[in-house]
Amino acid sequence: MTIRLPVPERHPSVRPTTWIVPERIEERLGLSLRLASETFQRTGSFKFRAAFHFARLAKANHLVAASSGNFGQALALSCRMLGKKATIVMPDRASRVKIGAVKGFGGTVELTDTDRTPRREVVERLLAEHPGSRRASAYGAEAVILGNATLGVEIGERLASWPEERRRRAAVVVPIGGGGISSGLVLGLRHAGYPEVPVVAAEPAIANDAAESLRREELVTLAQEPETLADGARVPRIGNRNWAILREGLSGIVEVPERRIAEAVRLLFHGANLKAEPTGALGLGAVLTDPERFAGKETVVIVTGGNVDPAVYIRILEGASTPEEVYG
Amino acid sequence: MTIRLPVPERHPSVRPTTWIVPERIEERLGLSLRLASETFQRTGSFKFRAAFHFARLAKANHLVAASSGNFGQALALSCRMLGKKATIVMPDRASRVKIGAVKGFGGTVELTDTDRTPRREVVERLLAEHPGSRRASAYGAEAVILGNATLGVEIGERLASWPEERRRRAAVVVPIGGGGISSGLVLGLRHAGYPEVPVVAAEPAIANDAAESLRREELVTLAQEPETLADGARVPRIGNRNWAILREGLSGIVEVPERRIAEAVRLLFHGANLKAEPTGALGLGAVLTDPERFAGKETVVIVTGGNVDPAVYIRILEGASTPEEVYG
Repeated sequence: MTIRLPVPERHPSVRPTTWIVPERIEERLGLSLRLASETFQRTGSFKFRAAFHFARLAKANHLVAASSGNFGQALALSCRMLGKKATIVMPDRASRVKIGAVKGFGGTVELTDTDRTPRREVVERLLAEHPGSRRASAYGAEAVILGNATLGVEIGERLASWPEERRRRAAVVVPIGGGGISSGLVLGLRHAGYPEVPVVAAEPAIANDAAESLRREELVTLAQEPETLADGARVPRIGNRNWAILREGLSGIVEVPERRIAEAVRLLFHGANLKAEPTGALGLGAVLTDPERFAGKETVVIVTGGNVDPAVYIRILEGASTPEEVYG
Repeated sequence: MTIRLPVPERHPSVRPTTWIVPERIEERLGLSLRLASETFQRTGSFKFRAAFHFARLAKANHLVAASSGNFGQALALSCRMLGKKATIVMPDRASRVKIGAVKGFGGTVELTDTDRTPRREVVERLLAEHPGSRRASAYGAEAVILGNATLGVEIGERLASWPEERRRRAAVVVPIGGGGISSGLVLGLRHAGYPEVPVVAAEPAIANDAAESLRREELVTLAQEPETLADGARVPRIGNRNWAILREGLSGIVEVPERRIAEAVRLLFHGANLKAEPTGALGLGAVLTDPERFAGKETVVIVTGGNVDPAVYIRILEGASTPEEVYG
């Protein structure tokens, strides 16, 4: 199946990705790596690409989303920039930093005790209460995937500047949670004329629904939300539209142990001066987990975001390597 | 006095600076800011610009420098790239991270107990022992200033892309220690055709020899090396050549209290996802210290480097704000 979707032009409100040459990491691993960092994207993660494109295309002037993380912030800022209203449903135990970030970008926060009322129910209630409002999904909507595809197009533009011999060895490694950025990358690289560049997804080994899905050739749903360090990948299954793109578009998945995620966060700090959140470090974690796969390649490592609770970051820098050690 | 020096073309081995829009910091302060970050420059600081240009022009094949910080790393890598030898004289109490970094870039490290033998003496001995070797200075040499000037040229190129109305409000704020990067910026902006853009230096208040020098209109030397958080600014006086450029080229100096340096490190972490070393955060510290000076301006904040000992960084993130609290 070939999926053809209208990949948008880069919008001036979306910042180009930041290219970093991590020479100290390259030397240590004996690999050729380029980081494409979305940590300096508006709101600190690639999610702004998705949220802004979705909010821009939406006819509704009030968008409602369940998100305790980066998508909520990205949607809040997108709506403010576009003169729309955003309501973000968050668990009442979400960190004050995260709640404050959404409010800081002009979003309305609706807290719920998720043990009593699932966030989905709150979203339904809000949609019913506010006629003309619409739900925004963090990874599965077409406009979300297409917004993410702009990153693939940018990577394609960069590949175009490489000599042919180097480009032939290109590979991209990208975190996978709901499948939003990985499916967007696949589409964007195709759109840019590089469908042959392998896209490898990096998934926490303890949240490996995507890897299982590829093995069984059908969508697998995890029984419960896994407690991985990579909180952006705590999604029990990838979206249907994402799956349709990924099942044929991914070259493979590396299942990354938790300690490799923590190691990657530390290595980005020490070796590249880059502050990454654990989910953002998954791509480098995959390289650490299976370096042979990237030997001889020119690997573009997508660092998806940098928003991390300082206490969590400090514990990882101090050597904590498991969710128990980090989240206590 | 007008100083005319041959500012070099940007060399392909020198990475362009990284532009970051710190919108969360802008909102908090109500100011328009752009970060020009050298934390992703080779070896993690602007010093590579200076060291590489110096090493490239030097006829000697063996360069010797006293440095416990970024210049040593930068010179080591520059020499390796150019097929030369670098010997870096470091205090024997320098952190293992810093010693390891110089060695990692191929430099030879010569340790000395600075209480017994000043580093300068060790440099003299090495120069005598190795005929044909030459001393490399961290800030005062002409080639060093000119290497740094390439950053000013890049900023000029960026200013050229701004609308005239915005460019008229441009200002640049930059850390000052020995005066290497600040004098380079002044020259580079002149070379790029923007001599009128004010360059404000950011100096630790407890190491304010440059501010004192401007006030007295003569070079002031501090009695001893000050213990500021900004270890890159622990220089008792600025260089003669730097002073000749700065006395007429600086628009002013902000004297930054230590707690503002620490606050700036935290603000870059939280508000811009940027890992900066304390010296690198001095420019933002100046903005925090004297925000009125930057009101209505379009301020380019130079973040000079990101190499910081993890224990130091953690203590600052945890709230430590004085040298005693941070260095113990």
